[in-house]
Amino acid sequence: MAEWRDIDDLPKNAANYMALTPLWFLDRAATVHPTRKSLIHGSLTYTWRQTYQRCRRLASALCTQSIGPGSTVAIITPNVPAIYEAHFGVPMSGAVLNTINIRLNAPTIAFLLGHSSSAAVIVDQEFFTLAEEALKIFEEKSKGKFKPPLLIVVADESCDPKSLRYALSKGAIEYQKFLESGDPEFAWKPPQDEWQSIALGYTSGTTASPKGVVLSHRGAYVMSLSCALIWGMNEGPVYLWTLPMFHCNGWCYPWTLAAVSGTSICLRQVTAKGVYSSIAKYGVTHFCAAPVVLNSIVNAAPEDTILPLPHVVNVNTAGAAPPPSVLLEMTKRGFRVTHTYGLSETYGPSTVCAWKPEWDSLPLETQARLNARQGVRYVGLEGLEIINTQNGQPVPADGKTVGEIVMRGNCVMKGYLKNPKANEETFANGWFHSGDLGVKHPDGYIEVKDRSKDIIISGGENISSVEIENFLYAHPAILEASVVARSDERWGESPCAFVTLKPGLDKSDERHLAEDIMKFCRSKMPAYWVPKSVVFGPLPKTATGKIQKHVLRAKAKEMGPVKKSKL
Amino acid sequence: MAEWRDIDDLPKNAANYMALTPLWFLDRAATVHPTRKSLIHGSLTYTWRQTYQRCRRLASALCTQSIGPGSTVAIITPNVPAIYEAHFGVPMSGAVLNTINIRLNAPTIAFLLGHSSSAAVIVDQEFFTLAEEALKIFEEKSKGKFKPPLLIVVADESCDPKSLRYALSKGAIEYQKFLESGDPEFAWKPPQDEWQSIALGYTSGTTASPKGVVLSHRGAYVMSLSCALIWGMNEGPVYLWTLPMFHCNGWCYPWTLAAVSGTSICLRQVTAKGVYSSIAKYGVTHFCAAPVVLNSIVNAAPEDTILPLPHVVNVNTAGAAPPPSVLLEMTKRGFRVTHTYGLSETYGPSTVCAWKPEWDSLPLETQARLNARQGVRYVGLEGLEIINTQNGQPVPADGKTVGEIVMRGNCVMKGYLKNPKANEETFANGWFHSGDLGVKHPDGYIEVKDRSKDIIISGGENISSVEIENFLYAHPAILEASVVARSDERWGESPCAFVTLKPGLDKSDERHLAEDIMKFCRSKMPAYWVPKSVVFGPLPKTATGKIQKHVLRAKAKEMGPVKKSKL
Repeated sequence: MAEWRDIDDLPKNAANYMALTPLWFLDRAATVHPTRKSLIHGSLTYTWRQTYQRCRRLASALCTQSIGPGSTVAIITPNVPAIYEAHFGVPMSGAVLNTINIRLNAPTIAFLLGHSSSAAVIVDQEFFTLAEEALKIFEEKSKGKFKPPLLIVVADESCDPKSLRYALSKGAIEYQKFLESGDPEFAWKPPQDEWQSIALGYTSGTTASPKGVVLSHRGAYVMSLSCALIWGMNEGPVYLWTLPMFHCNGWCYPWTLAAVSGTSICLRQVTAKGVYSSIAKYGVTHFCAAPVVLNSIVNAAPEDTILPLPHVVNVNTAGAAPPPSVLLEMTKRGFRVTHTYGLSETYGPSTVCAWKPEWDSLPLETQARLNARQGVRYVGLEGLEIINTQNGQPVPADGKTVGEIVMRGNCVMKGYLKNPKANEETFANGWFHSGDLGVKHPDGYIEVKDRSKDIIISGGENISSVEIENFLYAHPAILEASVVARSDERWGESPCAFVTLKPGLDKSDERHLAEDIMKFCRSKMPAYWVPKSVVFGPLPKTATGKIQKHVLRAKAKEMGPVKKSKL
Repeated sequence: MAEWRDIDDLPKNAANYMALTPLWFLDRAATVHPTRKSLIHGSLTYTWRQTYQRCRRLASALCTQSIGPGSTVAIITPNVPAIYEAHFGVPMSGAVLNTINIRLNAPTIAFLLGHSSSAAVIVDQEFFTLAEEALKIFEEKSKGKFKPPLLIVVADESCDPKSLRYALSKGAIEYQKFLESGDPEFAWKPPQDEWQSIALGYTSGTTASPKGVVLSHRGAYVMSLSCALIWGMNEGPVYLWTLPMFHCNGWCYPWTLAAVSGTSICLRQVTAKGVYSSIAKYGVTHFCAAPVVLNSIVNAAPEDTILPLPHVVNVNTAGAAPPPSVLLEMTKRGFRVTHTYGLSETYGPSTVCAWKPEWDSLPLETQARLNARQGVRYVGLEGLEIINTQNGQPVPADGKTVGEIVMRGNCVMKGYLKNPKANEETFANGWFHSGDLGVKHPDGYIEVKDRSKDIIISGGENISSVEIENFLYAHPAILEASVVARSDERWGESPCAFVTLKPGLDKSDERHLAEDIMKFCRSKMPAYWVPKSVVFGPLPKTATGKIQKHVLRAKAKEMGPVKKSKL
């Protein structure tokens, strides 16, 4: 039998095996399209040759500071060129990029810098005092063991020059100056092992302590190619950065854009007006956005829009289940919406509601409802199931039976940093457990019903807060809605709706409006789904535009239980 | 320092690491688009659900016959559904697919079956007697150690039923019957290690013995995704099979098409008329073809064409450097030609003449000249250089200095089967040595200047001149022989033999002798190997007695192309 095995007896060598890493995509873009625009930010424009040189300078300068394999480099910036460059320059030095949410507070950032042992911090000038405060807290807590990280401040012409002067007076190195200390022809090395970490990002998650999601070069490579394939993103797209790059590495798109030699348009602040004007000015072909951003695009004041759109604009939306009504309105405005779903732990979205040609002829409302489902696995994700949490078996594909969404494959994270307990739980039984609840439809498409913690259990029955929200979004007066459980003397829990009204509405008679909304709900859903409380006001959101349900739950708790008499 | 390393201290597990393999693409296509057409062949049409079931049946049936990991399964068919299915079904059983060129002769096939230790042979009914003859030769040479492989015959309604009856009478199992013995829900297993071999294909190469190129699941995965990306192939293309799947696994497109849920149109025989009518009938969007096929499309009789084309048709051409004039004529007819270059050893084409938007405004002739270059590396190929063969250093990018084209990366073969000497040479100094000569232009694009000298590329197939010479030397009248490529109006190139006759022979009737030599060749080798020209005379030699092929090539050039009428 030995002879049969000859077919596999051919070892790997330097010519036929290299670590998979998205870093080579940049080298290729600079070779093939050296003069094509890579990044545009205000009056700044870079070509791919320049971007490659800048990234090599960054890697070189970091190495000069003894920052390399095993080190972590933190970055605290909005969507400016520096954070794009860091996605290549930092791993080219061998270090791991730790992207930090700019909306976190100083104590949380202090915790992250300590937990990640960041050897350098790259911070936008506007956020310098935040970083400074965080480092101070970190130093106090470290009690003499503190080794101050290298502090690099990113200047931006659109910011108040005072904050830059202040940063420099505090000893920070200016980012551009730091780059200039590096070699633009630096001979960077790919990772020796593709399992080596490329990025680290903290998720607020459901627990008290943030968890550090660690991603590998291999996973980032597979996901970057998958992202292009799933979205039909061909060579040379013009991509608008509405999604923060600090959020889950911008769903891997910094790397995908190098693979397809696309042009990045940076947006320091995301507004509907800014999105529309970028489409007009730069010919934006693609952008990613959470449903809340879509909502602002749909509800933008007419003078802020440029409708009808001058060309097809592709939108990838994920981050929360988009209400069908929002999808419908986007389609009506000419956007081509691809609906995806995933988590930071799966390198961003890793399932897609793959469009079927046979849907083209359906009524728009039906299309929107079908497209609001979370769909099927990306090419780069090998396994996707919905399992019964009791016995671990797949639930029937009946569109009804709720189970936990689990995944496995090469775009599942390496694990949480220094958190063996969380890793054990999250990787139980050979699956990554998303914590999200959903159903599988007869056509094999999955649909998220809720985060497990967002499920409302009323009188022993599970209620999907997402489904109630979908109905609320269809009410003519409602701009945004979020539903959480409120304790209820009679039913244990009952739905409590928090809503924001559309601009220009008379808010003087909220009580009347609340009754109207409940009446609307009664006509659309089972009685026990109808919110027993409706609260008006702005909704608390994360940096990526996700509504913070835990804040709303805290509010609902403050309100106390719904009294029996209320019925 | 230990703490810094925490960032990489997260082991692989069943949820976050799986062997990369294109086999999952099929599972995905069947889940997402179960009712979409996967394959069309004559009156036969399959859906993705059916194709997945058929491939699982094949894998299951093979396993029942104890064919699995470490085994090789040979296939000898034109582009019919069976060879598409074999690209999935065979590796799903754990075995390796050995695709065999249907134009080879029985002794060569006998050698390949023996060298690859094929445990089963799947053969098209039209080629059954060829396989039978090959097996007979193989048996004779094995002298008692012969273990007859499982013989499976593929029926095709378009063939003479006699050949099928004959095959069945000889004990072959009918393919469809064999499938029916397998389980359509067979629980196939992905390879345990992605370095495991998926395919084996023999190249005539430059030496006398065919070399077996071994490809891995990992490489096939990376290349399949690269193929889609490079060509801008989005979901749901309609792909015409003009390129033989037995040739370098159809450049990995059987797997790519599953990744994008595309529809394969099979063509048993490739004619310009067949290409045009498939475009009209099925809405073909993509096909791959050697320049010789493009040539026939360009020169098709008007009544065989459907010009102007009803829609954009994308053509990927490689296999020989396409003359700019052919590219120009294709463009004029509305085809969008992507020019690529590679070898069986690099999973097919692995460089592409990436189109630049700034070329759009150039004269068509200039465009064709620029597009005739071999270009830049695929996303899946990490290294491409042209090196000075003396010192191994890259040549300057001056468009003049000729060097050897070398490559490295994840789409370079595992190696040649049971050929350590060839592997040592081909992988010297950490590069795969293509044996092709080229230059690098100032814009970084490479251009092939000379295929490896001894290779003749006729109708897209490589022919080793050494092998023809070996046969010629066996002719009783021939003293010396040397074979080079002569340009050929129909086949691009065809073999041209220069021979010196043995002393004492009557040289008065050279024309008769030439015919005798060609007749001799026809009895020994595949028809397309037979020299179309035989030239008598002394052979030019170096001081050390080596035949100077470059002098002969110059002579062949002087003779001008072989006319079509000659056939």
